[in-house]
Amino acid sequence: MAQSTLDKVIALAKRRGFVFQAGEIYGGTRASWDYGPLGVELKENIKKQWWQTFVRGRADMVGLDSSIILPKAVWEASGHVATFTDPLVECLSCHKRHRQDHLVEAFEAKKKRAPEGMSEIVCPDCGTKGQWTEPQLFSGLVKTYLGPVDNEAGLHYMRPETAQGIFVNFNNVLTTSRKKPPFGIGQVGKAFRNEITPGNFIFRTREFEQMEIEFFVHPDEAQKWFEDWVEACWNWFTDLGLNPDNMRRFDVPKEERAHYSAGTIDFEYQFGFKGSGWGELMGVANRTDYDLTSHSTASGTGLNYFDQATGERYTPFVIEPSFGLTRSMMAFLVDSYVEEEAPNAKGGVDIRTVLRLDPRLAPIKVAVLPLSRDERLSPVARELGDKLRRHWNIDVDDAGQIGRRYRRQDEIGTPFCVTVDFDTLEDNAVTVRERDSMAQERVALDQLEAYLAARLLGA
Amino acid sequence: MAQSTLDKVIALAKRRGFVFQAGEIYGGTRASWDYGPLGVELKENIKKQWWQTFVRGRADMVGLDSSIILPKAVWEASGHVATFTDPLVECLSCHKRHRQDHLVEAFEAKKKRAPEGMSEIVCPDCGTKGQWTEPQLFSGLVKTYLGPVDNEAGLHYMRPETAQGIFVNFNNVLTTSRKKPPFGIGQVGKAFRNEITPGNFIFRTREFEQMEIEFFVHPDEAQKWFEDWVEACWNWFTDLGLNPDNMRRFDVPKEERAHYSAGTIDFEYQFGFKGSGWGELMGVANRTDYDLTSHSTASGTGLNYFDQATGERYTPFVIEPSFGLTRSMMAFLVDSYVEEEAPNAKGGVDIRTVLRLDPRLAPIKVAVLPLSRDERLSPVARELGDKLRRHWNIDVDDAGQIGRRYRRQDEIGTPFCVTVDFDTLEDNAVTVRERDSMAQERVALDQLEAYLAARLLGA
Repeated sequence: MAQSTLDKVIALAKRRGFVFQAGEIYGGTRASWDYGPLGVELKENIKKQWWQTFVRGRADMVGLDSSIILPKAVWEASGHVATFTDPLVECLSCHKRHRQDHLVEAFEAKKKRAPEGMSEIVCPDCGTKGQWTEPQLFSGLVKTYLGPVDNEAGLHYMRPETAQGIFVNFNNVLTTSRKKPPFGIGQVGKAFRNEITPGNFIFRTREFEQMEIEFFVHPDEAQKWFEDWVEACWNWFTDLGLNPDNMRRFDVPKEERAHYSAGTIDFEYQFGFKGSGWGELMGVANRTDYDLTSHSTASGTGLNYFDQATGERYTPFVIEPSFGLTRSMMAFLVDSYVEEEAPNAKGGVDIRTVLRLDPRLAPIKVAVLPLSRDERLSPVARELGDKLRRHWNIDVDDAGQIGRRYRRQDEIGTPFCVTVDFDTLEDNAVTVRERDSMAQERVALDQLEAYLAARLLGA
Repeated sequence: MAQSTLDKVIALAKRRGFVFQAGEIYGGTRASWDYGPLGVELKENIKKQWWQTFVRGRADMVGLDSSIILPKAVWEASGHVATFTDPLVECLSCHKRHRQDHLVEAFEAKKKRAPEGMSEIVCPDCGTKGQWTEPQLFSGLVKTYLGPVDNEAGLHYMRPETAQGIFVNFNNVLTTSRKKPPFGIGQVGKAFRNEITPGNFIFRTREFEQMEIEFFVHPDEAQKWFEDWVEACWNWFTDLGLNPDNMRRFDVPKEERAHYSAGTIDFEYQFGFKGSGWGELMGVANRTDYDLTSHSTASGTGLNYFDQATGERYTPFVIEPSFGLTRSMMAFLVDSYVEEEAPNAKGGVDIRTVLRLDPRLAPIKVAVLPLSRDERLSPVARELGDKLRRHWNIDVDDAGQIGRRYRRQDEIGTPFCVTVDFDTLEDNAVTVRERDSMAQERVALDQLEAYLAARLLGA
C-alpha cells in the first residue's frame, strides 16, 4: 500500500506542476528535478516556516548565506577532500562501476579471507569474474574550474553541505552579531554531491537543498543541547502536520557516523520506498570541536570563544541539526496524501484525492471560483482574486464543473475555495468551503479577508 | 563624493555583518562574498518583495525553481556554448590575460588598419610589445563534471542565467498551470559566470543571484508588453525607495546587445564606481522567439501555443525583465546611506549614520532596548523581544549607552527602537523611537503590536 501511495504522489507531483524532470525535452535525467509553480511555493513555504521557527523566531540564532563555491583549502581542512574519495572499478563486461572497497569487503565477509587480487572477484551485476579496470579515484565532491585556464590553480569544489560556510565565518558572526555561546547560525541553500546512484524521485539527487543549523555551545553542555535540538526538530515536523507514526529516530552506531561526529540521531520517514520503505529525513549530529579546530589549524586563525565572565577560552562544540529541504517537501507530500470517499453531485459517492497539507505549507491558500463563466460573475471573481492576492497566493479558476474544480483544489491542498455565484450579485456574500471537512459557510465580502486571515494564521 | 559613499557603505557592510569575504580566514577572494546575519535578511526581504510584486501578486504570473546544473544540450541550443567563448592571450612579460579580439579592435581603432599579427600589439598592462602566448579558448560558462569519471559524457554547465530553465519548462508550465499568453514565469536563484575580471564588491562576482521573469506574449503585442515591463520594473525600485535621480535608462544599441535580443533597455544606477560611477542594475530585453524556437529545433519538442479562440498556433515572443538580486541589494544599501547632524546627549551635535531603508527591506524591524542592565528591566525586555519575534526579525540590545545603541540601530536601518525603562514597570508602556524623524512616542505595551503592525505593513 505504502509503495502505491508513493507512486501516486510522484504522478500527482508531475501532473499538477510540483516537480518536473530537469531538461525533460532533452530526454531528462532521473538525477535532477525542477520545481514547478506549485512546487516552488510549497518549497518556499517550508523554508519560511523553518526560518521563522529556528532563525528569526529565536533570540539565540542568526542567519547566514555563504557561497556555494568555496576555495579548495576549506574542503581540505574539513576533511572532505580526503574522506569523500573512494576507489571505483568498472566491470569490463557490463561496464557498471562499483566501489572497490565494497567489493573486497563483500568477498571477505563471504570467504572469510582476503582476495588474492581483483581477479578473484565476481561482478555483482553480470556475474563475470575478474574482469575489472584499474581502480580510479572517485570523489563525491563536485568539482569546477574558475579562472581563465582549467588547471589545479582554478580547481574549486561546490559545497557538499552548507555547514562549512558557517564554520569559516564563525569569528565574523561572533564579532558582528554580539552573540555568545550558546548560539547558532542557520542557513538554507543548495548543496551538490556527485552521487553514484541518485534516485527515488527527489530523495537523492546530485543538486539538492539543505536547511542547516550549527549551534555553538560550551563542551560541557553539548549533550544537553544535543537532546534539546532533537526534540525541537521532531516537534517542528509534527507541528507542521507530519504524522509521528510515520517517523522514527535512529541512533547511528559509531562505525556508520560521519568522520566528524561523536553522536548522530537520524530522523527517518516512511516514504514507502522498495524494501523497508524508510529513508533519512534529517540528522542531528554532535560535531564536537572537530570543524572549528580543523579550520583553526589549517588557516592559522583561532576560531574559539573567550568567556569574559569565567575567564575561560574554549573551542565550542557544535550541535548540528541538518535538514534536507527537498526530502522534507517529499515527506510532507507523501504524508498529506489521502484518498477518501466523498458524495458527488448525483447523490452517489466518489473517491476524492486530498493533500491535507497544513495551511501554512499549502502552495495556494485560496481558490476563487466563479460558479460559471457568466459575464456578470467573472469580473467579481477577478476583482476578488486581485484583492486577496495582496496577502496570499491565489488561484482563480473558471474552467469546468464546480465539483471538478473543488476536486482539483483538494488535490493540491488548497485550504479554502471561495465560490462567487449569482446570489453574490445580490447579497455581497460568497460561499467559503473548507478543504478537509468540505463544510461550506456564507461569508460577507467585506468580512472575507478577516475570515480568511483568522484561519490562515502564519500562512 | 559618490566614491567616498561607496567606500563607506562597503566598510559598513563588512563591519556590521551584511557581507563578508568568502573564505576570509584562508585569504579570501575579491570575487566571492558571503552574506552575514544582516545581509541574508536584507537579501531575503528584497526577494520577498519581488516575489510578492511580480509573481504572487499578479494573476498573469507563476513561479518556478529549476536546476542550476542543466544538461549540455540546453546550453548548446541556447547559444551559450558558442557565444560565451572568447580567445584569450597572455602577456609573456606580466602574465596578465586579455581577450584577443579586444586587443585587435583597440589596435584597429587607433591605427586605422588591421595588425599584421600579435607581434605588433602592445600589452596594455605593462607596455611589452608582441610577447603573447598562443590564444586559448576561454568560456564564460562554469563547467563541472558529474558521474564517476571526468570525461566529456559527464560534462555539465552551471547556468549563467536562470532563464533557460524557464524556457525548457514552457510546455510543462503551460499544461499544469492552465495559463495562456500573455503570461509569465518568474524565478529567483543562483547563476554562475566565469568572469575574467570580477570586482566592485558584490557588483560583479562569479557566483551571483538573479531574479528573472520570462513573459510570453503574442508577437504582435511584444512591443507594448516590453514598454509595460520597463515601467513596472522602474516603479518597483522607486516604490521601495530608490531615488530616481540615481537611476537612468540606457537603450542598448544593436551591436552591444546579447545575441538573442531585438531590443534591450538597461537600468543603470549611480553606484559611485571609479569612472562614470554608473553600473547596470537590471535589463529588460525582447528575446523574440529566439529561445523557444532554438529549443524546439534542438529538442524536437514544439514549444509554442495554440490559441483555441483564433485557431492560430504561434511561438510566443519573450519579454525578459532580468534583475540582479545582489546588485539590487548593493543599490539599496548605497541609496539609503545618509550621514546627518543629530543632537547628542551633551547638548551638542553629532554626525549620525542612517540607512534609510524602506521598512519592508530593513533586516531588523524592531530593536528592544532595556534602558540599563538592571535586573528588573532585562526580563521585561527579553519577554517583549520574544513576543515581537513571532512577527518580525528583532534585536534585543542591552550593551552600552542608550544613545550609542540608537546609533547602532540607525546604522543598520532599524525602523523602530522600543525602550524599556523604569517607568515601564509602573505604567506598562514603552518609548517607541522612529529612525528617520527620531520622534519618540509612549505606547502602552498591550497596544504595541498593533502600533508596530500598522507602521510595518507588508514588512
